[in-house]
Amino acid sequence: MRQTFEEELTSLHHHFSEMGMMVNEAIYKSVKSFINHDKELAQEVIDHDHQINELELTLEKKCFELIALQQPVTSDLRRIVTVMKACADLERMGDHAVSIARSTIRVKGTKRIPQIEVKIAELSEKVKVIVRAALEAYLKKDVEQARKTADSDDAINALSKEIFEQCIEEMKADPELVICGTDYLLVSRYLERIGDYVTNICEWVIYLETGKITELNSNHTFN
Amino acid sequence: MRQTFEEELTSLHHHFSEMGMMVNEAIYKSVKSFINHDKELAQEVIDHDHQINELELTLEKKCFELIALQQPVTSDLRRIVTVMKACADLERMGDHAVSIARSTIRVKGTKRIPQIEVKIAELSEKVKVIVRAALEAYLKKDVEQARKTADSDDAINALSKEIFEQCIEEMKADPELVICGTDYLLVSRYLERIGDYVTNICEWVIYLETGKITELNSNHTFN
Repeated sequence: MRQTFEEELTSLHHHFSEMGMMVNEAIYKSVKSFINHDKELAQEVIDHDHQINELELTLEKKCFELIALQQPVTSDLRRIVTVMKACADLERMGDHAVSIARSTIRVKGTKRIPQIEVKIAELSEKVKVIVRAALEAYLKKDVEQARKTADSDDAINALSKEIFEQCIEEMKADPELVICGTDYLLVSRYLERIGDYVTNICEWVIYLETGKITELNSNHTFN
Repeated sequence: MRQTFEEELTSLHHHFSEMGMMVNEAIYKSVKSFINHDKELAQEVIDHDHQINELELTLEKKCFELIALQQPVTSDLRRIVTVMKACADLERMGDHAVSIARSTIRVKGTKRIPQIEVKIAELSEKVKVIVRAALEAYLKKDVEQARKTADSDDAINALSKEIFEQCIEEMKADPELVICGTDYLLVSRYLERIGDYVTNICEWVIYLETGKITELNSNHTFN
Protein backbone atom coordinates (compact mmCIF):
# COMPACT_ATOMS: atom_id res chain seq x y z
CA MET A 1 0.00 0.00 0.00
CA ARG A 2 2.75 2.39 1.04
CA GLN A 3 4.65 1.51 -2.13
CA THR A 4 1.64 2.34 -4.27
CA PHE A 5 1.06 5.65 -2.52
CA GLU A 6 4.71 6.59 -3.04
CA GLU A 7 4.32 5.74 -6.72
CA GLU A 8 1.18 7.82 -6.94
CA LEU A 9 2.99 10.79 -5.41
CA THR A 10 5.85 10.39 -7.87
CA SER A 11 3.40 10.25 -10.74
CA LEU A 12 1.67 13.43 -9.45
CA HIS A 13 5.06 15.13 -9.28
CA HIS A 14 5.83 14.09 -12.88
CA HIS A 15 2.50 15.32 -14.17
CA PHE A 16 3.04 18.66 -12.47
CA SER A 17 6.48 18.96 -14.07
CA GLU A 18 4.98 18.02 -17.41
CA MET A 19 2.38 20.76 -17.01
CA GLY A 20 5.18 23.19 -16.14
CA MET A 21 7.04 22.32 -19.31
CA MET A 22 3.90 22.69 -21.42
CA VAL A 23 3.30 26.15 -19.93
CA ASN A 24 6.91 27.15 -20.45
CA GLU A 25 6.66 26.13 -24.10
CA ALA A 26 3.39 28.05 -24.51
CA ILE A 27 5.01 31.21 -23.13
CA TYR A 28 8.05 30.79 -25.33
CA LYS A 29 5.97 30.20 -28.46
CA SER A 30 3.57 33.04 -27.74
CA VAL A 31 6.36 35.60 -27.42
CA LYS A 32 8.16 34.19 -30.43
CA SER A 33 4.94 34.54 -32.44
CA PHE A 34 4.49 38.12 -31.21
CA ILE A 35 8.05 39.18 -32.07
CA ASN A 36 8.06 37.43 -35.46
CA HIS A 37 4.47 38.47 -36.29
CA ASP A 38 3.75 34.77 -36.76
CA LYS A 39 -0.02 34.33 -36.56
CA GLU A 40 0.13 30.60 -37.25
CA LEU A 41 2.33 29.97 -34.25
CA ALA A 42 0.07 32.20 -32.15
CA GLN A 43 -2.94 30.13 -33.20
CA GLU A 44 -1.06 26.99 -32.18
CA VAL A 45 -0.62 28.37 -28.65
CA ILE A 46 -4.35 29.17 -28.45
CA ASP A 47 -5.31 25.73 -29.80
CA HIS A 48 -3.08 23.90 -27.32
CA ASP A 49 -4.21 25.76 -24.22
CA HIS A 50 -7.05 23.32 -23.51
CA GLN A 51 -4.42 20.61 -22.94
CA ILE A 52 -2.94 22.71 -20.13
CA ASN A 53 -6.39 23.30 -18.66
CA GLU A 54 -7.21 19.58 -18.84
CA LEU A 55 -3.96 18.68 -17.14
CA GLU A 56 -4.83 21.10 -14.34
CA LEU A 57 -8.24 19.43 -13.88
CA THR A 58 -6.60 15.99 -13.86
CA LEU A 59 -4.06 17.10 -11.26
CA GLU A 60 -6.74 18.64 -9.05
CA LYS A 61 -8.83 15.47 -9.16
CA LYS A 62 -5.80 13.31 -8.43
CA CYS A 63 -4.82 15.48 -5.44
CA PHE A 64 -8.31 15.24 -4.02
CA GLU A 65 -8.40 11.46 -4.45
CA LEU A 66 -5.00 11.02 -2.83
CA ILE A 67 -6.00 13.12 0.18
CA ALA A 68 -9.36 11.37 0.55
CA LEU A 69 -8.09 7.82 0.07
CA GLN A 70 -4.64 7.94 1.62
CA GLN A 71 -5.18 10.52 4.36
CA PRO A 72 -1.60 11.72 4.12
CA VAL A 73 0.06 13.80 6.83
CA THR A 74 3.08 16.12 7.15
CA SER A 75 5.45 16.05 4.17
CA ASP A 76 3.29 13.78 1.99
CA LEU A 77 0.33 16.07 2.48
CA ARG A 78 2.55 19.05 1.68
CA ARG A 79 3.60 17.44 -1.59
CA ILE A 80 -0.04 17.09 -2.59
CA VAL A 81 -1.09 20.55 -1.40
CA THR A 82 1.81 22.12 -3.30
CA VAL A 83 0.68 20.56 -6.56
CA MET A 84 -2.95 21.43 -5.80
CA LYS A 85 -2.13 25.11 -5.29
CA ALA A 86 0.73 25.62 -7.75
CA CYS A 87 -1.08 24.03 -10.70
CA ALA A 88 -3.50 26.99 -10.62
CA ASP A 89 -0.50 29.32 -10.98
CA LEU A 90 0.76 27.32 -13.94
CA GLU A 91 -2.66 27.39 -15.55
CA ARG A 92 -2.79 31.17 -15.27
CA MET A 93 0.66 31.50 -16.75
CA GLY A 94 -0.75 29.53 -19.69
CA ASP A 95 -3.69 31.95 -19.87
CA HIS A 96 -1.27 34.84 -20.18
CA ALA A 97 0.55 33.04 -23.00
CA VAL A 98 -2.83 32.82 -24.74
CA SER A 99 -3.36 36.56 -24.18
CA ILE A 100 0.01 37.25 -25.82
CA ALA A 101 -0.93 34.97 -28.72
CA ARG A 102 -4.23 36.83 -29.10
CA SER A 103 -2.38 40.15 -29.24
CA THR A 104 -0.27 38.68 -32.05
CA ILE A 105 -3.36 37.76 -34.03
CA ARG A 106 -5.07 41.08 -33.38
CA VAL A 107 -2.19 43.22 -34.63
CA LYS A 108 -2.90 44.26 -38.17
CA GLY A 109 -0.26 45.60 -40.55
CA THR A 110 0.23 48.68 -38.38
CA LYS A 111 3.42 50.59 -37.80
CA ARG A 112 5.85 48.88 -35.43
CA ILE A 113 8.49 50.11 -32.96
CA PRO A 114 11.53 47.85 -33.46
CA GLN A 115 13.44 49.13 -30.42
CA ILE A 116 10.53 48.19 -28.14
CA GLU A 117 10.21 44.79 -29.78
CA VAL A 118 13.86 44.21 -28.90
CA LYS A 119 13.10 45.04 -25.27
CA ILE A 120 10.07 42.75 -25.22
CA ALA A 121 12.26 39.94 -26.57
CA GLU A 122 14.73 40.71 -23.78
CA LEU A 123 11.93 40.70 -21.19
CA SER A 124 10.60 37.38 -22.43
CA GLU A 125 14.09 35.91 -22.27
CA LYS A 126 14.30 36.91 -18.59
CA VAL A 127 10.85 35.43 -17.96
CA LYS A 128 11.85 32.17 -19.68
CA VAL A 129 14.89 31.93 -17.42
CA ILE A 130 12.88 32.34 -14.21
CA VAL A 131 10.11 29.97 -15.30
CA ARG A 132 12.73 27.30 -15.90
CA ALA A 133 14.56 28.12 -12.67
CA ALA A 134 11.35 27.83 -10.63
CA LEU A 135 10.44 24.48 -12.17
CA GLU A 136 13.99 23.28 -11.54
CA ALA A 137 13.77 24.47 -7.92
CA TYR A 138 10.58 22.45 -7.60
CA LEU A 139 12.16 19.33 -9.10
CA LYS A 140 15.26 19.62 -6.92
CA LYS A 141 13.28 20.86 -3.89
CA ASP A 142 15.86 23.62 -3.71
CA VAL A 143 14.74 26.35 -1.31
CA GLU A 144 17.77 28.52 -2.00
CA GLN A 145 17.14 28.48 -5.74
CA ALA A 146 13.46 29.25 -5.14
CA ARG A 147 14.41 32.36 -3.14
CA LYS A 148 16.95 33.52 -5.71
CA THR A 149 14.48 33.00 -8.54
CA ALA A 150 11.84 35.08 -6.78
CA ASP A 151 14.43 37.83 -6.20
CA SER A 152 15.20 38.08 -9.89
CA ASP A 153 11.58 39.00 -10.54
CA ASP A 154 12.61 42.59 -9.65
CA ALA A 155 14.61 42.93 -12.86
CA ILE A 156 11.54 41.83 -14.83
CA ASN A 157 9.38 44.45 -13.14
CA ALA A 158 11.97 47.15 -13.82
CA LEU A 159 12.22 46.28 -17.51
CA SER A 160 8.44 46.09 -17.82
CA LYS A 161 8.17 49.57 -16.29
CA GLU A 162 10.75 50.86 -18.75
CA ILE A 163 8.81 49.41 -21.69
CA PHE A 164 5.59 50.89 -20.31
CA GLU A 165 7.03 54.39 -20.13
CA GLN A 166 8.65 54.15 -23.53
CA CYS A 167 5.37 53.02 -25.09
CA ILE A 168 3.57 56.03 -23.63
CA GLU A 169 6.19 58.40 -25.08
CA GLU A 170 6.05 56.77 -28.53
CA MET A 171 2.26 56.82 -28.62
CA LYS A 172 2.18 60.47 -27.60
CA ALA A 173 4.65 61.34 -30.35
CA ASP A 174 2.91 59.45 -33.16
CA PRO A 175 -0.81 58.51 -33.17
CA GLU A 176 -0.11 55.80 -35.72
CA LEU A 177 1.79 53.95 -32.99
CA VAL A 178 -1.19 53.79 -30.61
CA ILE A 179 -2.38 50.35 -31.69
CA CYS A 180 0.97 48.60 -31.56
CA GLY A 181 2.04 50.61 -28.49
CA THR A 182 -1.01 49.35 -26.62
CA ASP A 183 -0.18 45.79 -27.55
CA TYR A 184 3.45 46.16 -26.47
CA LEU A 185 2.30 47.55 -23.20
CA LEU A 186 -0.17 44.74 -22.61
CA VAL A 187 2.27 42.02 -23.64
CA SER A 188 4.93 43.36 -21.28
CA ARG A 189 2.29 43.47 -18.54
CA TYR A 190 1.38 39.81 -19.23
CA LEU A 191 5.03 38.85 -19.00
CA GLU A 192 5.32 40.74 -15.73
CA ARG A 193 2.30 38.86 -14.36
CA ILE A 194 3.86 35.56 -15.42
CA GLY A 195 6.82 36.61 -13.29
CA ASP A 196 4.45 37.10 -10.34
CA TYR A 197 3.09 33.59 -10.76
CA VAL A 198 6.64 32.29 -10.87
CA THR A 199 7.15 33.96 -7.49
CA ASN A 200 4.08 32.11 -6.21
CA ILE A 201 5.50 28.80 -7.39
CA CYS A 202 8.77 29.63 -5.59
CA GLU A 203 6.72 30.23 -2.44
CA TRP A 204 5.19 26.76 -2.84
CA VAL A 205 8.64 25.19 -3.24
CA ILE A 206 9.64 26.75 0.09
CA TYR A 207 6.43 25.49 1.66
CA LEU A 208 7.06 22.02 0.26
CA GLU A 209 10.40 21.80 1.98
CA THR A 210 9.90 23.84 5.14
CA GLY A 211 6.15 23.68 5.79
CA LYS A 212 6.16 27.47 6.04
CA ILE A 213 3.90 29.58 3.87
CA THR A 214 5.97 32.67 3.13
CA GLU A 215 5.40 35.68 0.96
CA LEU A 216 8.28 36.56 -1.36
CA ASN A 217 8.24 39.95 -3.08
CA SER A 218 4.93 41.11 -1.66
CA ASN A 219 5.21 44.30 -3.69
CA HIS A 220 5.90 42.49 -6.87
CA THR A 221 4.21 44.63 -9.47
CA PHE A 222 4.98 48.23 -10.20
CA ASN A 223 1.35 48.75 -11.04
CA MET B 1 -14.45 15.66 18.56
CA ARG B 2 -16.95 15.67 15.71
CA GLN B 3 -18.60 18.73 17.21
CA THR B 4 -15.30 20.58 17.32
CA PHE B 5 -14.48 19.68 13.74
CA GLU B 6 -17.86 20.93 12.58
CA GLU B 7 -17.22 24.18 14.46
CA GLU B 8 -13.82 24.50 12.85
CA LEU B 9 -15.34 24.05 9.40
CA THR B 10 -17.95 26.69 10.15
CA SER B 11 -15.26 29.06 11.32
CA LEU B 12 -13.26 28.41 8.12
CA HIS B 13 -16.37 29.17 6.11
CA HIS B 14 -16.91 32.44 8.01
CA HIS B 15 -13.31 33.52 7.53
CA PHE B 16 -13.56 32.84 3.83
CA SER B 17 -16.74 34.93 3.60
CA GLU B 18 -15.02 37.68 5.58
CA MET B 19 -12.11 37.64 3.13
CA GLY B 20 -14.62 37.83 0.27
CA MET B 21 -16.24 40.90 1.77
CA MET B 22 -12.87 42.58 2.32
CA VAL B 23 -11.96 41.96 -1.32
CA ASN B 24 -15.32 43.22 -2.51
CA GLU B 25 -14.82 46.41 -0.52
CA ALA B 26 -11.29 46.84 -1.89
CA ILE B 27 -12.58 46.56 -5.47
CA TYR B 28 -15.39 48.99 -4.78
CA LYS B 29 -13.10 51.54 -3.14
CA SER B 30 -10.40 51.25 -5.79
CA VAL B 31 -12.82 51.98 -8.61
CA LYS B 32 -14.47 54.76 -6.64
CA SER B 33 -11.05 56.32 -6.07
CA PHE B 34 -10.23 56.00 -9.78
CA ILE B 35 -13.48 57.60 -10.94
CA ASN B 36 -13.38 60.39 -8.34
CA HIS B 37 -9.62 60.95 -8.72
CA ASP B 38 -9.39 60.34 -4.97
CA LYS B 39 -5.76 59.51 -4.21
CA GLU B 40 -6.36 59.21 -0.47
CA LEU B 41 -8.95 56.49 -0.92
CA ALA B 42 -6.62 54.76 -3.41
CA GLN B 43 -3.85 54.80 -0.81
CA GLU B 44 -6.25 53.26 1.70
CA VAL B 45 -6.85 50.31 -0.63
CA ILE B 46 -3.09 49.81 -1.04
CA ASP B 47 -2.49 50.07 2.73
CA HIS B 48 -5.20 47.53 3.54
CA ASP B 49 -4.15 44.91 1.03
CA HIS B 50 -1.78 43.19 3.48
CA GLN B 51 -4.82 42.30 5.61
CA ILE B 52 -6.27 40.37 2.68
CA ASN B 53 -2.95 38.63 2.09
CA GLU B 54 -2.64 37.73 5.76
CA LEU B 55 -6.15 36.34 5.82
CA GLU B 56 -5.25 34.17 2.83
CA LEU B 57 -2.19 32.82 4.67
CA THR B 58 -4.28 32.14 7.78
CA LEU B 59 -6.89 30.29 5.74
CA GLU B 60 -4.27 28.21 3.94
CA LYS B 61 -2.65 27.20 7.21
CA LYS B 62 -6.02 26.35 8.76
CA CYS B 63 -7.00 24.22 5.75
CA PHE B 64 -3.75 22.31 5.96
CA GLU B 65 -4.13 21.71 9.69
CA LEU B 66 -7.72 20.52 9.31
CA ILE B 67 -6.76 18.05 6.59
CA ALA B 68 -3.75 16.78 8.52
CA LEU B 69 -5.42 16.50 11.92
CA GLN B 70 -8.98 15.54 11.00
CA GLN B 71 -8.39 13.52 7.84
CA PRO B 72 -11.72 14.54 6.38
CA VAL B 73 -13.34 12.71 3.48
CA THR B 74 -16.03 13.44 0.85
CA SER B 75 -18.05 16.60 1.49
CA ASP B 76 -16.01 17.80 4.49
CA LEU B 77 -12.82 17.51 2.48
CA ARG B 78 -14.50 19.34 -0.38
CA ARG B 79 -15.42 22.21 1.93
CA ILE B 80 -11.77 22.57 2.91
CA VAL B 81 -10.38 22.18 -0.60
CA THR B 82 -12.83 24.80 -1.89
CA VAL B 83 -11.58 27.36 0.62
CA MET B 84 -7.97 26.36 -0.03
CA LYS B 85 -8.32 26.93 -3.77
CA ALA B 86 -10.80 29.81 -3.88
CA CYS B 87 -8.92 31.97 -1.36
CA ALA B 88 -6.14 32.32 -3.96
CA ASP B 89 -8.72 33.68 -6.40
CA LEU B 90 -9.93 36.18 -3.82
CA GLU B 91 -6.38 37.26 -3.08
CA ARG B 92 -5.75 37.95 -6.76
CA MET B 93 -8.94 39.94 -7.03
CA GLY B 94 -7.51 42.03 -4.18
CA ASP B 95 -4.25 42.42 -6.13
CA HIS B 96 -6.20 43.81 -9.06
CA ALA B 97 -7.95 46.28 -6.77
CA VAL B 98 -4.46 47.42 -5.72
CA SER B 99 -3.48 47.79 -9.37
CA ILE B 100 -6.52 50.00 -9.95
CA ALA B 101 -5.60 52.06 -6.87
CA ARG B 102 -2.05 52.43 -8.20
CA SER B 103 -3.40 53.67 -11.52
CA THR B 104 -5.39 56.28 -9.58
CA ILE B 105 -2.26 57.50 -7.82
CA ARG B 106 -0.16 57.51 -10.98
CA VAL B 107 -2.58 59.66 -12.99
CA LYS B 108 -1.37 63.21 -12.93
CA GLY B 109 -3.52 66.19 -13.85
CA THR B 110 -3.80 64.99 -17.44
CA LYS B 111 -6.71 65.38 -19.78
CA ARG B 112 -9.59 63.02 -19.06
CA ILE B 113 -12.28 61.34 -21.19
CA PRO B 114 -15.54 61.66 -19.21
CA GLN B 115 -17.57 59.35 -21.48
CA ILE B 116 -15.08 56.53 -20.92
CA GLU B 117 -15.07 57.16 -17.17
CA VAL B 118 -18.84 56.68 -17.25
CA LYS B 119 -18.38 53.32 -18.96
CA ILE B 120 -15.72 52.26 -16.45
CA ALA B 121 -18.12 53.12 -13.64
CA GLU B 122 -20.75 50.99 -15.40
CA LEU B 123 -18.27 48.13 -15.80
CA SER B 124 -17.29 48.28 -12.14
CA GLU B 125 -20.95 48.21 -11.17
CA LYS B 126 -21.41 45.01 -13.15
CA VAL B 127 -18.30 43.53 -11.53
CA LYS B 128 -19.55 44.46 -8.08
CA VAL B 129 -22.80 42.67 -8.78
CA ILE B 130 -21.12 39.42 -9.84
CA VAL B 131 -18.61 39.47 -6.98
CA ARG B 132 -21.51 39.72 -4.54
CA ALA B 133 -23.54 37.10 -6.40
CA ALA B 134 -20.62 34.63 -6.35
CA LEU B 135 -20.06 35.11 -2.61
CA GLU B 136 -23.77 34.69 -2.04
CA ALA B 137 -23.78 31.51 -4.13
CA TYR B 138 -20.95 30.23 -1.95
CA LEU B 139 -22.77 31.09 1.27
CA LYS B 140 -26.02 29.51 0.06
CA LYS B 141 -24.21 26.66 -1.75
CA ASP B 142 -26.39 27.56 -4.70
CA VAL B 143 -25.16 25.82 -7.85
CA GLU B 144 -27.76 27.46 -10.06
CA GLN B 145 -26.76 30.94 -8.92
CA ALA B 146 -23.09 30.05 -9.44
CA ARG B 147 -23.80 29.06 -13.04
CA LYS B 148 -25.87 32.18 -13.73
CA THR B 149 -23.21 34.41 -12.18
CA ALA B 150 -20.50 32.90 -14.38
CA ASP B 151 -22.72 33.42 -17.44
CA SER B 152 -23.07 37.11 -16.75
CA ASP B 153 -19.28 37.47 -17.06
CA ASP B 154 -19.89 37.69 -20.84
CA ALA B 155 -21.48 41.14 -20.49
CA ILE B 156 -18.40 42.30 -18.58
CA ASN B 157 -16.07 41.06 -21.32
CA ALA B 158 -18.18 42.77 -23.98
CA LEU B 159 -18.15 46.11 -22.18
CA SER B 160 -14.42 45.83 -21.50
CA LYS B 161 -13.83 45.22 -25.22
CA GLU B 162 -15.94 48.28 -26.05
CA ILE B 163 -13.90 50.45 -23.65
CA PHE B 164 -10.68 49.06 -25.08
CA GLU B 165 -11.63 49.99 -28.64
CA GLN B 166 -12.90 53.41 -27.65
CA CYS B 167 -9.65 54.16 -25.79
CA ILE B 168 -7.62 53.28 -28.88
CA GLU B 169 -9.71 55.65 -31.02
CA GLU B 170 -9.45 58.51 -28.51
CA MET B 171 -5.69 58.08 -28.12
CA LYS B 172 -5.21 58.03 -31.90
CA ALA B 173 -7.23 61.24 -32.22
CA ASP B 174 -5.48 63.18 -29.46
CA PRO B 175 -1.95 62.45 -28.17
CA GLU B 176 -2.75 64.27 -24.94
CA LEU B 177 -5.16 61.44 -24.15
CA VAL B 178 -2.51 58.71 -24.33
CA ILE B 179 -1.70 58.69 -20.61
CA CYS B 180 -5.24 58.57 -19.33
CA GLY B 181 -6.35 56.31 -22.20
CA THR B 182 -3.73 53.77 -21.20
CA ASP B 183 -4.95 53.83 -17.62
CA TYR B 184 -8.58 53.41 -18.66
CA LEU B 185 -7.59 50.49 -20.78
CA LEU B 186 -5.64 48.85 -17.97
CA VAL B 187 -8.30 49.47 -15.36
CA SER B 188 -10.97 47.93 -17.57
CA ARG B 189 -8.66 44.99 -18.14
CA TYR B 190 -8.21 44.56 -14.37
CA LEU B 191 -11.97 44.60 -13.90
CA GLU B 192 -12.33 42.01 -16.63
CA ARG B 193 -9.77 39.79 -14.88
CA ILE B 194 -11.66 40.17 -11.62
CA GLY B 195 -14.66 38.81 -13.53
CA ASP B 196 -12.56 35.80 -14.55
CA TYR B 197 -11.68 35.09 -10.93
CA VAL B 198 -15.35 35.35 -10.03
CA THR B 199 -15.97 32.63 -12.62
CA ASN B 200 -13.34 30.49 -10.86
CA ILE B 201 -15.09 30.97 -7.54
CA CYS B 202 -18.37 29.92 -9.17
CA GLU B 203 -16.61 26.79 -10.38
CA TRP B 204 -15.56 26.05 -6.81
CA VAL B 205 -19.12 26.52 -5.57
CA ILE B 206 -20.24 23.88 -8.07
CA TYR B 207 -17.42 21.61 -6.96
CA LEU B 208 -18.38 22.13 -3.32
CA GLU B 209 -21.89 20.91 -3.96
CA THR B 210 -21.46 18.34 -6.69
CA GLY B 211 -17.86 17.15 -6.32
CA LYS B 212 -17.35 17.89 -10.02
CA ILE B 213 -14.60 20.19 -11.19
CA THR B 214 -16.12 21.98 -14.17
CA GLU B 215 -14.90 24.75 -16.40
CA LEU B 216 -17.37 27.59 -16.90
CA ASN B 217 -16.67 30.13 -19.66
CA SER B 218 -13.40 28.59 -20.82
CA ASN B 219 -13.00 31.39 -23.33
CA HIS B 220 -13.62 34.08 -20.81
CA THR B 221 -11.38 36.89 -21.97
CA PHE B 222 -11.54 38.62 -25.30
CA ASN B 223 -7.80 39.04 -25.13
